[in-house]
Amino acid sequence: MLLGPGDDAAVLAAPDGRVVVTTDVLIEGRHFRRDWSSGYDIGRKSAAQNLADIAAMGAEPTSLVVGLGLPADTAIEWLDALTDGFRDECALAGTGVAGGDIARSEIVMIGVTALGDLGGRPPVTRSGARPGHIVAVAGRLGYAAAGLALLRAGLASGAVPASEGVPGTGGVPGTGDAPGEGAGGSGGLPPGLVALVDAHRRPRPPYAQGPEAARLGATAMLDVSDGLLQDLGHVAAAGGVGIRLDPAALPIPEIFAEAAGVLGDEVDPLDWVLTGGDDHALAAAFPPDVRLPPEWTPIGEVTDGEGVQVTGHPTTTTGTTGGWDHFRT
Amino acid sequence: MLLGPGDDAAVLAAPDGRVVVTTDVLIEGRHFRRDWSSGYDIGRKSAAQNLADIAAMGAEPTSLVVGLGLPADTAIEWLDALTDGFRDECALAGTGVAGGDIARSEIVMIGVTALGDLGGRPPVTRSGARPGHIVAVAGRLGYAAAGLALLRAGLASGAVPASEGVPGTGGVPGTGDAPGEGAGGSGGLPPGLVALVDAHRRPRPPYAQGPEAARLGATAMLDVSDGLLQDLGHVAAAGGVGIRLDPAALPIPEIFAEAAGVLGDEVDPLDWVLTGGDDHALAAAFPPDVRLPPEWTPIGEVTDGEGVQVTGHPTTTTGTTGGWDHFRT
Repeated sequence: MLLGPGDDAAVLAAPDGRVVVTTDVLIEGRHFRRDWSSGYDIGRKSAAQNLADIAAMGAEPTSLVVGLGLPADTAIEWLDALTDGFRDECALAGTGVAGGDIARSEIVMIGVTALGDLGGRPPVTRSGARPGHIVAVAGRLGYAAAGLALLRAGLASGAVPASEGVPGTGGVPGTGDAPGEGAGGSGGLPPGLVALVDAHRRPRPPYAQGPEAARLGATAMLDVSDGLLQDLGHVAAAGGVGIRLDPAALPIPEIFAEAAGVLGDEVDPLDWVLTGGDDHALAAAFPPDVRLPPEWTPIGEVTDGEGVQVTGHPTTTTGTTGGWDHFRT
Repeated sequence: MLLGPGDDAAVLAAPDGRVVVTTDVLIEGRHFRRDWSSGYDIGRKSAAQNLADIAAMGAEPTSLVVGLGLPADTAIEWLDALTDGFRDECALAGTGVAGGDIARSEIVMIGVTALGDLGGRPPVTRSGARPGHIVAVAGRLGYAAAGLALLRAGLASGAVPASEGVPGTGGVPGTGDAPGEGAGGSGGLPPGLVALVDAHRRPRPPYAQGPEAARLGATAMLDVSDGLLQDLGHVAAAGGVGIRLDPAALPIPEIFAEAAGVLGDEVDPLDWVLTGGDDHALAAAFPPDVRLPPEWTPIGEVTDGEGVQVTGHPTTTTGTTGGWDHFRT
């Protein structure tokens, strides 16, 4: 950052001569609930979903700007925790907050814009997948959806108090892996499932894998924000190709079975993996000769045709818009 | 724009190797009223206040991204008009909208982030004013405040219908000077005062004068968003200097006397010029040997000391925060 907050605008380095930019709006009650997530977690998550969009272009995040609408009775501690969350998530992605604006509003509204630098590489768009390419993912799938299901079922409730959710002052909590981080808000949940609720509150996009995939020659990439099937549908539509997923290759952690058991037998953990959003994993297509590092799990391949098929499972598309009916309806 | 909307992020040229970034949040009921301004006007104004911040750094705007929170019952015509307003104001500043995000919200919320390019010049911050420098303004002062006073007094009411506020499809309405543009929403207002209400609805920042001032050697600059006294107070505080304004040099158009007459004799048009915000004029300090082009009006000088004085008028400061009590209280 060459010139920080306090003037009409900030000035940032853009050494590549291009700048990547993305923006998202998060509205209370629709994208987050203050009784389910602390201010700290909301800051973490709001930053994460924008920084993941930058990584999904193959770029390194270079800054974030934040616009806030806040009710008049917002506690300063809550705003401090939100700010800490933004700061810590930015630090995990190697960047920081360059500035912002606050206005009074009836509900909490958060507008986030992230910038990034391509380091001389072409951007990795959604359109370059070709038949024979490998489809792979980095990051987690279905964790946030499982956590949200637990919250919705009333099995975990209550936001993490700001004082518990903020890991010290000025420090960056490593990868967010610290045991018990956020455990304060998980009600009577079996300890093994706390990680799922935490995943809803604080996604962990694999930021470094975006530029890494670009360096490896990824031909298409996006972040999984609406669910794997729906988002890969965008890749298929943009590339004029089909995608076939191998369900046996999809990572389904054992904890999902435990969560499904707690929730009742209506739940199939594969649903969370295929249709759950908000984990902000990266999904990409690679030429078949690319040797993928261990962070990337091959889950299928690009084919002729259109749409996304899951071998052995009926899925339906809604045409070329990239929209998908819910899995198995 | 190297890569436009439709992917995870847009990619823009940043030929300078640096990027200027600013963000603002606008909330319905606080920053605009849908019964006073059309969707088109709200788009124009929301873009203008961010683009003016870019110009105030001495930079050329290179793009805008927009995050919207919209009620479920928002008419598509209103959203189209808002989008047209963003597009047309961007075109006036030589740029365009690179992307955005829309979410459902109970009230209209607009988050705008503007980017700009410095063209190899240093940014013009608020802090470089030195004793002996000339203080000058480009653009209008007090127009929007006078227009707001007329709206508040009920002398002009009703938003411009979207169909009237949108000047054709795809076209840019020149400088916004077209006679009668927006006249549909001025109620029973004397025709001569319509321009003031229009000024509240669609400010006209002198975008080109930002980079021009930088080329001329401006030592400090900002856009007048909160009122001349308050904003010059920021320049004084940041530079550790005082500023003395010559009231005889301040431009007070004749139409202000007519507006004041309509509103009653409590109103002093000088108040609008000194304390009215929202016109987004540019105010800058220049070395005394700079020959100013006609777009810039000298209004005072930088002095030793602190705060902003208006010769012959009592003004009070609230210390070094840059905040000001209302003029003449």
